[in-house]
Parts: sequence; structure tokens; C-alpha cells
Amino acid sequence: MSNQRPISCGLDFCAVPDLSNCLFTAHASKYEFICAPLVHPLFKREFISGKAKDRAGPFTRPDIVLCSSDWNTLVIGKLSPHIKVDSKNPSLRKNSEEALKQELALASHLGLIGVTFKLTKGIKENANLSRIICDRVSSMYSLQVWVQVPMENPIKQASSYREEDCGGIVESPWEWWNAFRIVCDYNKYVGVALIVSHDLPDQKEIDRWLGEPVKCLIFPTTLFITNKKGYPVLSKAHQTLVKKFAMLEVQFILTGQNRYQSITYYHNYLEYLWKDRASDGPVERYARGYEDYLQCPLQPLMDNLESQTYEVFEKDPVKYTQYQTAIYQAINMIVQTIEDKNKKIVIMVVGAGRGPLVCASLNAAEKANHPVKVYAVEKNPNAVLTLQALEKDLWEGKVTVVSCDMREWNSPEDADIMVSELLGSFGDNELSPECLDGIQRFLKPNGICIPSSYTSYIAPVQSSKLYNEVRQYGEKDKHSIAHFENSYVVHLQNKYDIAKPQPLFTFKHPNYAPFIDNSRYETRVFKVRQNSVLHGFSGYFDTILFNNITLSTKPSTHSPGMFSWFPIFFPIREPVQLKAGDEIVVHFWRQCNSKKVWYEWCISEPFPGPIHNPGGRSYTMGL
Amino acid sequence: MSNQRPISCGLDFCAVPDLSNCLFTAHASKYEFICAPLVHPLFKREFISGKAKDRAGPFTRPDIVLCSSDWNTLVIGKLSPHIKVDSKNPSLRKNSEEALKQELALASHLGLIGVTFKLTKGIKENANLSRIICDRVSSMYSLQVWVQVPMENPIKQASSYREEDCGGIVESPWEWWNAFRIVCDYNKYVGVALIVSHDLPDQKEIDRWLGEPVKCLIFPTTLFITNKKGYPVLSKAHQTLVKKFAMLEVQFILTGQNRYQSITYYHNYLEYLWKDRASDGPVERYARGYEDYLQCPLQPLMDNLESQTYEVFEKDPVKYTQYQTAIYQAINMIVQTIEDKNKKIVIMVVGAGRGPLVCASLNAAEKANHPVKVYAVEKNPNAVLTLQALEKDLWEGKVTVVSCDMREWNSPEDADIMVSELLGSFGDNELSPECLDGIQRFLKPNGICIPSSYTSYIAPVQSSKLYNEVRQYGEKDKHSIAHFENSYVVHLQNKYDIAKPQPLFTFKHPNYAPFIDNSRYETRVFKVRQNSVLHGFSGYFDTILFNNITLSTKPSTHSPGMFSWFPIFFPIREPVQLKAGDEIVVHFWRQCNSKKVWYEWCISEPFPGPIHNPGGRSYTMGL
Repeated sequence: MSNQRPISCGLDFCAVPDLSNCLFTAHASKYEFICAPLVHPLFKREFISGKAKDRAGPFTRPDIVLCSSDWNTLVIGKLSPHIKVDSKNPSLRKNSEEALKQELALASHLGLIGVTFKLTKGIKENANLSRIICDRVSSMYSLQVWVQVPMENPIKQASSYREEDCGGIVESPWEWWNAFRIVCDYNKYVGVALIVSHDLPDQKEIDRWLGEPVKCLIFPTTLFITNKKGYPVLSKAHQTLVKKFAMLEVQFILTGQNRYQSITYYHNYLEYLWKDRASDGPVERYARGYEDYLQCPLQPLMDNLESQTYEVFEKDPVKYTQYQTAIYQAINMIVQTIEDKNKKIVIMVVGAGRGPLVCASLNAAEKANHPVKVYAVEKNPNAVLTLQALEKDLWEGKVTVVSCDMREWNSPEDADIMVSELLGSFGDNELSPECLDGIQRFLKPNGICIPSSYTSYIAPVQSSKLYNEVRQYGEKDKHSIAHFENSYVVHLQNKYDIAKPQPLFTFKHPNYAPFIDNSRYETRVFKVRQNSVLHGFSGYFDTILFNNITLSTKPSTHSPGMFSWFPIFFPIREPVQLKAGDEIVVHFWRQCNSKKVWYEWCISEPFPGPIHNPGGRSYTMGL
Repeated sequence: MSNQRPISCGLDFCAVPDLSNCLFTAHASKYEFICAPLVHPLFKREFISGKAKDRAGPFTRPDIVLCSSDWNTLVIGKLSPHIKVDSKNPSLRKNSEEALKQELALASHLGLIGVTFKLTKGIKENANLSRIICDRVSSMYSLQVWVQVPMENPIKQASSYREEDCGGIVESPWEWWNAFRIVCDYNKYVGVALIVSHDLPDQKEIDRWLGEPVKCLIFPTTLFITNKKGYPVLSKAHQTLVKKFAMLEVQFILTGQNRYQSITYYHNYLEYLWKDRASDGPVERYARGYEDYLQCPLQPLMDNLESQTYEVFEKDPVKYTQYQTAIYQAINMIVQTIEDKNKKIVIMVVGAGRGPLVCASLNAAEKANHPVKVYAVEKNPNAVLTLQALEKDLWEGKVTVVSCDMREWNSPEDADIMVSELLGSFGDNELSPECLDGIQRFLKPNGICIPSSYTSYIAPVQSSKLYNEVRQYGEKDKHSIAHFENSYVVHLQNKYDIAKPQPLFTFKHPNYAPFIDNSRYETRVFKVRQNSVLHGFSGYFDTILFNNITLSTKPSTHSPGMFSWFPIFFPIREPVQLKAGDEIVVHFWRQCNSKKVWYEWCISEPFPGPIHNPGGRSYTMGL
């Protein structure tokens, strides 16, 4: 839970005769860094053959013009635009290869933050560039590579462009980037510097970029318009764009000629937009610093939660209010059916933790003005200490604390209401069904379970960030496939939703089926709207506590302000290239035996893929 | 180099009232094994609900009807055809799942060779079946699963089928199999039992099956026709089929009603075809037992070859004859240009090994009737011992043995002819270019290099066998990606050639370029004829020794009888699903620095893939 960081905006220079001077200018105008050519554009070098081969003298300025800490923090190096390592001309290619290696080695020597260059073609004409970048970046310290990609194909931006001429099909530069980074094997130091276009592409194309490792937005000064007061501002559409990407903590680069009295004006305006991005609600504050950070789901049944975990979740401002309302309504309903209005209603809080649902029950009863008897059943002996203290100090006579696994408890009486909070990020993934099935024998006929049902949801997701996180997750010695057969709790940020979530597994309580079967097998079909890449599935849930009192983590119905659950993420082993119009067919299983529960999943369309986690080999939830 | 194994042909039974009896019948008719239902078809079982749930009595025969060794070697168990684990009906599905697990557990208990069942649909309707098979097979001992797949879609075989009705597009059952085994993650115990159809599909479809793990061909008796003598025989097309698959050492199953006096007749005929398969040339004899067996390429420059290796390769019946002819022609050509007919021609054998090229040189000189002086340069001190013995005993006065790395040798005189045999399975992959460049300073102007040039070839290959071999190759603790970034020398058998080989890198000697550059970068495009799966690239080479004297391992021009080189195989990390009409675009680099040489490769179409072996991280050839 860190603070928002300030804006970081760089100034681009086409030529840098005096580096210190340029840096001084940029800083005086508030810019945090500069982009400068690594090598003087006129100092052409030839390594294999050609006139320049024997040119005397240095090929660029020496490192001592700046101190190391300035090189390390203030300069992004621009690679020479004349480098053509995929040229069909062998000598131009060879010369370019050597020039590129020389510039990358120089950037490394200087310890720059990163280097940048423009991507202007598809991979067939870029394979060698991709290979060299991948190779050099892998063998160097953490030099960043910012690949400049235009938001729109330059063909479309040309004044002579007419859609008819291209048959309506112009390759999106996203395709260039997608292929480039695949050939670089998703190297985490290779990111996107997105060149913002005058006419923005479709909303869905912008959204797709939100699933990419966009490090930086490049704004040409020509995009700015002058407001009434004479200052540079952006169009509404561009403002929205800035705010969206600000959520991913991108940096900015201003490029092109200054058209105002001071170049500071641009910086001021971008800073204003930066500070004005989505206001900070409790969820944002809670989640800051956890963006796209993978966590293994809790296993509260197998492991005992820690004090701190209880403390964090008890602070949720929404969840317990909803529970209290649900319990209140349930009490009222039961009161209508009992004759002896003084008869205590029996509430069992199963999995009571440190007591928040006990409090909610007592509050609800007080509000309903009806006496209750509460059993607080908890299997974690450490949490029971808290319950027992509260029982003595606060709940005298109303609450009985039971230190026992609910599935093994022999209750002295049956409950009118059974309240639990056993749901995980994917609904049933903390084994709520199994736990509640194990204690429902102590629910009265017509007794009420809160929650009464819950449903998990899945949606296909593109996120190179998550793909990389999973790939690098955990212990190095473990077989790498195992990471892709786990699920992860994660605050999803840097992702693109390929399609809307669909419901998957539903569980209802109490469950009076003659043969209780909590295994599930479902198939879901998702339509693909545009070319994209499938990296896995995001998971959510919603639950009906009672009547119309619900909790939801599904984006479209998310309970406002509730922070108790991040989404879950199910990765797939290999990214799948999707075409617009494709169907994703995914199969999900919930498997159970007497000792454990686990998920398996696979896709069968548009391309079949292997079963993930067969037999629970990589991850299970222990009963 | 093992012997051909005898035929193994099983007899299929639809019902087996008495197992011993059936086995006796089959054996009396020469059949090596039988296929029998695991469970009596009438003993329907229901596990979840339904009438049969409470049926009393055993569900099948007990294990004691056969001794273990018979169960283990003579019986393939047929799964019950009523099992429908992908039914939309939840209770039929659940019952089927339990029945399937019961039968697989029984097969495991009995220790059968394998189980078999028919695949009749695509993966969308088979995902659950695939999952269960994959899961159970992984958790059991090495129980084989023979998935029966028809060669032709049954729709096509139906009498009512008219191509127009289906718009000409009928899904090939190969697609069913392909998706099924992908979901099973290429489990090596899951193989194909190919049901041979009356009308055979296109040749290319048959060829595609040759890239699959076909364990067995199933012949319905209806395929047989009666010859003049009254015995069952197969059509020419079916005979060819049997012989082709016999190369993969498949087994056979005969199914259907016997229509002859004795069911032995079918076995006799199949055995006749089996024995009549491709006759055994020197290559076949040499390669037997090495089919699809991966070997790391030799590194004769870095490592010293062993005695045995020299011995094997010296026996090649073709290679040295070709060399001798080339040397003979070279001598003759040089003789024409020199005035003093008594002047000795200087031949340098660089990399002389144990002397086969020295012998070839001396023989050629004798045949040309011209005196020669031969230098035998060899860097392996152990092989030099042999050379020195021969120098003394056999080559007195004609041969000078030089114990030295050719790149470091200071020759007292220049050569007229420089002979070497430094080529690997991929031509330049044993660093012939670097070695010869290092000694060519001792070649006279107009001197001749033998070989004078060589070219490598690549072709896209489908082979689930090789994919699995690579995946399981080598040390378990090494990062698994490394296996996919090596090349392998392998006698390719169980593979399908997706397209014809194309030339890749060419080297010529002597090389008088002002700046010698043995790095290469080439892109090749292959057209895909039918849906298939790309698992990697096979590599070959050919070489011009001198004039029109050549050696080749490229299949279409393979030097008859030559066995010195198996092809090479470059895997790719993830299989790529190909569609008919797709283009495969592959990029290959030969990279060099002062210490080593290595290849890198990647594909950019139909889907981009990562660079393999960037910077030589997984495999290099040491200089």
C-alpha cells in the first residue's frame, strides 16, 4: 500500500550537440529525463566494407561528459535509425549488425536506463532485429528496451490513405509488436513505447494495449490543441487515454517542436492529467503495490490463518454490513414462522475466525429485537483464544465458543441459521461446499444457510505481464510446468479482457441431494472480437447471502468498496494466438476425492491444448 | 544392429465367454495375442443411480482364469463401448466415468499389455475422455492405450455418402486423434490403432499417419479378397500400406467374421507381407535399432574421436570410393598443367584420422600413374599412432605424418590438393569451414580443395515420436527448454515430411574473400499441403567433392548405400498446428565468434515463435 508516484515525463531530442546543455534545458522545464541519439547521425560507421570503414576519430561522445548517476537515471538512448539488420543487402545488413551491437554495448557501458527504436514492420522483415535485441538484452544487465510502436498503422495516418484501396484491411502495429516480443520470448526487459496517434484507433484496440507491457506513451507536440487561455491541452479522447494508461504507471515522452512560449506547458498539462486519474477508493488504497502480483490462494482449511490476515479482512467496509443485513432478514423470516416469540433463534457461525460474523449476528438480532443463541465454531485454536476472550468479556451468555473442526463437531442442538464465510476468490476454492456439507446435518428442516448459493465466473485474458510472472514464479528447481498448473490470487491490472465473464460452477446450501457430488465439469465458449493472445482465464465469483443480499467480485456487478477478494487467475502453458471471429472453447473440471479437491482445465478451440493439472499433480486444496 | 522381429498379429473377439478357450483357438491359428472385452457387455453397471446400481454379483471374470504371464503378454482389453464420459446427460456421464475408471483399474490389476477403444468424434465432444485417459495412464504402470482411429471418416465410407452433400469437406479422423493426444499432452503410452479402410485415403494422408505413434493396424476381414487359389489376399494398395507401416514395426489385429476354411490363412498372408518388406541394404542393417534414436552430434574438433568411431565410419562402402575418384580426377587435371611430369603432386590430407583418405590418395595416384607426396595432418594424438604405424609399414617414403591441429601447422611447402572429410550431418556443423579457412594459406594458387563445396538442406517435419524424445532427453535437472535448443543426429523413421527439403547454407573452398565470414542468415518458405503439426526441421547436406563427384544425404539424391551420416533434427519448443495452404517461414542463423559456432532458429509464419538457442545458450560447437 504505497503512495502514488509522481509523473515521469521525458523530452525527446533529435540531435544533441551538447548533452549537459540539453539535460539542463530539460530539467529547467521540469522534464524528468531526456531521449538522445547514442551516436551522432552524421558519424556513419561501416565495419565490413565501404568508405566510412577507415574514418578516423571517435564514433560518439565519451562517457565522461556526464557522471555515472546522470547516465543511469536521466538518459534514454536512441538507436541510429539507419540500422537495417534485416536488409536483403548483405553488406548493409552486416554493417547494421555491427553498428547495432556497438550501440547496445555503448548503452550498457554507460549504464543507461534503456534504449529505444521504432518498429515499422512485421516480423518477417524483423526477425534478425528481434534476435539481436533478444540476445543482447539477455546477456546484459537490466537494460530496458523500449520498442516504439505507433498506435495506428502509418498507412492509415497518411493523407493519401483511402480505406477502399487497402480492402479495409491494414495490419495493426500491434501485430508487429506481438510477433516481435514472441520472437524475443517475452523478454521482460523488452517493453512498448506507444506512439500516440492523432486519430485514436477503436476502443477495443486501445484496450488490447492495456494487456501489453506498455512502459511509456510518446506524445508528439502536434497532438496538443490550444485552449482558450492559450495553453496546450489534449482532446477528450486523448485525456481518457492518458488516464487509462496512468493506471499502469507508465512514463511519458514529449517529442516534436515546441509551439508555445515554454515547453514546460506540456509537462504541466500532462502532470495535471496524471494527478487527476481515478480517485483513490478503499479498494485502490488497499491494493496499491499489489498490481499484477501473484499470490497463492489461501488454504484456510489446511492451514491456520495468521492474526494479521484476520485483521486485514475484518476491515472490509462492505462485506460484514451485507452479512448483517442478510442475517437480519433471515431472523425476521424465521420469527414469522415460530409461535413462541421468546424462543431463541439458534445461529451457528461455522468458521468464526476472530468473530466478525458473531458480531454481525448479535447486531442483527438486536436490530430485529429477537433473542438468539450463537454458536461460534472455529478450528484454528489461535483464533479460538480471541473468541473465548470475547465470549467472556463481551458476549456473556449469548455466545458459545466451540473449538472444533465443523465437520467433526457434534452439536447439542440444531440451527435455524448457519452462517459462514468460507468463500475464496473463485467461490468454492476454499472448500466451502465440502465444509458446509459436513455440518448441515445440524441445520433444522427449513433452516437457512447464509450464503445460500455462490457461482464462479471465468473470462479469457490477454496479459503478457501475468504470463511472465507465472513463468518466473516460485522455486527454480520445481518443474516449470507446475507454475502453469496453479491458480493465483492477483489484483489484475495490466490485462485485456478478450471476452466477458461467464458463470461456471454453482453450489447451493443446504444441499439435500441423495448423493452429494461436488465435482463439476463445464465447457464454455467465448467469441474473439479481434486478433489477440490468450494467456489464461481470470476468475471471479458472486454469492447470494440471503434473498437479494449479494456480494460480487465480477467486474460488472462488483460490490462497491469491497476489498476482501482479488480475482483469481488460471494460466495456460503456452500463449494461444487468436484471430478475430475465433471461438475459445475451454473445459473446466472441479475434481474431488476423499483427501483433496482440485481444478483441471484445457482448451479445445481454436487449438487444442494439454490438460492442466491432471490428477491434481501440481496443486490441490487439502480437505 | 538387431535382427528383424517376427510379425505380431492379434485376433479380435467381440465376446469372450471362456477366455482360455479363446486364447487356445487364437494360438492354434498362429495369432500372437487376442483382444477381448474387459467386461461382459450385458453386465451393465451403474454407480450413481439407475436399476443396475444394486445388481448383485461380480462385474466380470476373476483374474485367476489366466496366469499372470498370460494376462501380461496375450491380452489387449477392450473398454466397454457404452461408456460415454462426455454425455450431456449428467447421470450417464457420471456412470460412464465410474465404469471407465473401474475398467482401467481392472486392466491395471491384471497387468494387461494395453487397453483399446474407438475414437469417433472431435475433441469438443471428447475432452473428458481424453482427460481421464491421460490422468489414469499417467498414474499407472506402463499400461498402453491403443486408440482406435479409422483411416477414413465413417461418413465417407457410408453407402449414402455423396461428396457434394458435405461440400467436399469431411473432417479427417486424424484431426480427432491429433486433438486427443494434445489434450493428453503427447503421453507416450497413448498410441494409435489404425483401422484400415476399404477405400484408402490420399497418399499424403497415409504419409501423415507415418508421423504418428501408430502401434497397430486393424484389418477387418472384409478387406481381404480371394485369390485364384482360394486364399485371402489384400489389394495392391493395401499391400503397400502394410509394407510401409511394417517399417515402423507395428503390430496387427484381425477383426470380423472368418470367411475361409481356417482363420490361419489371414495370419499366413500378413506374415508373408511382413517378411517381404523392404529388403535389407547396408544402410538398413547399419541403422537397425537406431530408428528415431537421438544422438548428440559429434564434435570431432573439440573432442577426440574414439577408435570404434573411426572403425565404423571407415567401413562406409561408398564414401571413400567417391573420394578416390575425386582425387584421381583432380590429379589428372593438375598433371595437364605441370611441365615436369615427374614432379610430385603434393596432397595434404587434413584431418587424416586413421588414414582412409591417405589410402584413397595413394590409390588414386597409382591409378593416375603419377607420383605424389602426401601429408597426413591429424590433431588426435591417438589416431596419429595408427598413422605413424602405417607410415612406417606401408606408406614408406610417400607419406609424412604431421601430428598437429591443421590451423596451427606451419607447412614446409604448399599443396596442390587439399583433401578433408570434416563434414557433419548438416554439412558445416563440424566446423569444416573454419578448419579449412585455417589451412588454406598452404594451398597453391589454382590448388584444389576436395570437397570444393557443400550445402545444407532443411525440411519441416511432423513427428510426435521425435517431439517426445526431445522432451524427455538428457538430464532431468537441466532446464527443459535446453533440449529444444539442441540439434540431434537421428535415423528418422516415424515422421511425416510436411514439405520437400530446401537448400540453406553453402560453403565453398578455397575461400578467397577479402573478409572471410562464415556466419549466415537465411529465411525459407515452405508450403503446407494438408493440416498437420510442425515439430521441427530435418537437416541434410550434399557436397561436391570435385567436378561432378558428389555425396548426398538428401533423400531425393541420397548416395546409394552410404551410411556415414544420419540426418540431423532441429526441434521447436512447441508444436505448431498447421492448416492446408499455410506457409511456414523459418529463419536460420549460423553464428560465430572467436571461440565457437552455433545455430539459432525461429519461425515467423504461420505463427511467430521464440528464437531458439539465442547467443548459443544451450548448445555451441567449440573451435
